[in-house]
Amino acid sequence: MSQVLDLTSGLIGRRSVTPDDAGCQELIAARLRDAGFACEQLRYGQVDNLWATHGSGQPVLVLLGHTDVVPPGPAQDWTSDPFVPVIRDGVLYGRGAADMKGSVAAFVIAMEQFVAAHPGHAGTIALLLTSDEEGDAIDGVRRVADTFRARGQAIDWCITGEPSSTHRLGDLLRVGRRGTLSATLTVKGIQGHVAYPDKARNPIHQALPALAELTARHWDDGYETFPPTSLQVSNFNAGTGANNVIPGDAKVLFNLRYNPHWNAARLESEIGAVLDRHGLEYELHWHRGGEPFYTPEGRLRAMAREVLAEFTGTAPQESTAGGTSDARFIAPLGAQCIEIGPVNASIHKVDENVSVVDLEALPALYRRLIERLLLE
Amino acid sequence: MSQVLDLTSGLIGRRSVTPDDAGCQELIAARLRDAGFACEQLRYGQVDNLWATHGSGQPVLVLLGHTDVVPPGPAQDWTSDPFVPVIRDGVLYGRGAADMKGSVAAFVIAMEQFVAAHPGHAGTIALLLTSDEEGDAIDGVRRVADTFRARGQAIDWCITGEPSSTHRLGDLLRVGRRGTLSATLTVKGIQGHVAYPDKARNPIHQALPALAELTARHWDDGYETFPPTSLQVSNFNAGTGANNVIPGDAKVLFNLRYNPHWNAARLESEIGAVLDRHGLEYELHWHRGGEPFYTPEGRLRAMAREVLAEFTGTAPQESTAGGTSDARFIAPLGAQCIEIGPVNASIHKVDENVSVVDLEALPALYRRLIERLLLE
Repeated sequence: MSQVLDLTSGLIGRRSVTPDDAGCQELIAARLRDAGFACEQLRYGQVDNLWATHGSGQPVLVLLGHTDVVPPGPAQDWTSDPFVPVIRDGVLYGRGAADMKGSVAAFVIAMEQFVAAHPGHAGTIALLLTSDEEGDAIDGVRRVADTFRARGQAIDWCITGEPSSTHRLGDLLRVGRRGTLSATLTVKGIQGHVAYPDKARNPIHQALPALAELTARHWDDGYETFPPTSLQVSNFNAGTGANNVIPGDAKVLFNLRYNPHWNAARLESEIGAVLDRHGLEYELHWHRGGEPFYTPEGRLRAMAREVLAEFTGTAPQESTAGGTSDARFIAPLGAQCIEIGPVNASIHKVDENVSVVDLEALPALYRRLIERLLLE
Repeated sequence: MSQVLDLTSGLIGRRSVTPDDAGCQELIAARLRDAGFACEQLRYGQVDNLWATHGSGQPVLVLLGHTDVVPPGPAQDWTSDPFVPVIRDGVLYGRGAADMKGSVAAFVIAMEQFVAAHPGHAGTIALLLTSDEEGDAIDGVRRVADTFRARGQAIDWCITGEPSSTHRLGDLLRVGRRGTLSATLTVKGIQGHVAYPDKARNPIHQALPALAELTARHWDDGYETFPPTSLQVSNFNAGTGANNVIPGDAKVLFNLRYNPHWNAARLESEIGAVLDRHGLEYELHWHRGGEPFYTPEGRLRAMAREVLAEFTGTAPQESTAGGTSDARFIAPLGAQCIEIGPVNASIHKVDENVSVVDLEALPALYRRLIERLLLE
């Protein structure tokens, strides 16, 4: 069995359902220490984080990943045990195979090979892993970034191994992500009987015009390759179940995915102003999921594009679409960030998998990127 | 103990939580049979109905009431057991004391006294009781009215004993009720991830402008003494709980209380047109709770006003406000309907009660009304 298959299988076999690392990072730290890396364990709350570095000074290139996985759901829905790696017809199955134990294993192999071949390389090559990317993402890279900020730890480039490819390995280079901002809104009314609306204040009626305005709003036309900013009401709950009672309050959850035209503070301020203008009595709690990040054309993007074209024969699509990743916490440190990883078709689903051919190619792909960034 | 206190207490002691009659109607039927009434039990499904008549032919005067009560809630919230009648400081406490075992007992005493004094009275004096006024109201007076319609049973006047008084006994004469119409609306969308709104269709966003228009609509300015027609959204439920999922559908309950400017068919048609105009994909189920009824100036209203003024010293307020009552099912038979009953301040609450003075006055009040309607 190849090194990358062996390590990926060892990681899949560890039941690291978020935020439990289940020994994945210790397995990796032991290997990297043997390869000459300095390994620091940063445990916050229930979350394990690993910071492994080789070399010193700038430029600092960080490979960023996570060892936690989403829950497998009912095991009987899977063709085989989600925590027992199995290869069938050239495909490796198991929870985390694509998201993202395969990339993490490839990072480790690539780094081991790189430092063995170039022990006196310029700058710093580093691996940052967390066990809290799929969960609350509070005590993971968010907290590590706070620590880095306090220490003055510079990061020039960050490559996240999130499964970003769409149809085949390397067809997409992610160069940014939208920001995400969530709100929990409670509109307060006065409970009463539907027969006596004058004695009540219906919080649903209060909320409707304000939310209709917010959801109809055209926020922008997009930014560079970013899609337009979007507000989606995900939950609206009010009522006692009875059709003759005006409820006392209405609870609304909504989420914004926004491009670099906006930041969380400005969105919060404008939305609050709309609610105020409609005369709502309300409580509003914001959860800032991460500001958008964008890596404009430059050395990192150019190198990545060239390496992907070398491996695939075609220039990748450069995209800023999709959900969030931990790069949102590293970008504000001043780092250029990109994401390159395997095909994401099966992630978070039953029978999650990665093609063995893609997995075998990944260490060489990451190693080539490291070499071009740190040796040229 | 007086007759009316005794009978009211006997009824309160029977735990007739809707739709269980718990023997109340049998207690009453036994008394009325002794007084010369013909008693017919009409049981539909789980619901008991009693139709007791004395005399024959027209005019037909019906006293209308219910023996069921709403649940008491936690018994420990009550000062004394809700099903053990207790008098404290001139007030009788117990579930149903005001709504409406007191009025039912007063009906019975008034009828017994009336037929004893006037055994050869003109027309028909009748009592109609149900055990399903507080519940679904399907197998109660609604079904009885269907039976009456099939039989060709004429009803000229109907006096409901619902607790209609506001501050003191007889201060309000109810001469109509609004109609009630309920809707269950399911707005259909396409589920998806909030990060990819283009691949989903948010049913909350679809529903918001249509519901904002409906709830902002001015339906009318009222009708005679009726308040304006009102639409209230009582329940709005959509969402998976997660803030990153656009739900597949939204469920909305709303209710209209409407005056005689409208009927259910016209309201349904206009509301459907609004939903269609907004391009919603939806399912809409209507429940017609009862058309409005209105008893214009005439013999019944005049007599009732005079009798109430005799007893209270002042003319009552004549009102069409408030919720629904079973009179909605009797009015369409061509009957003039009014409602006269005790003070409603404590109904559906803990420590429900009726003042002993009011309760003692009720049989005489009802008897006087019967006499004026059937003897003059």
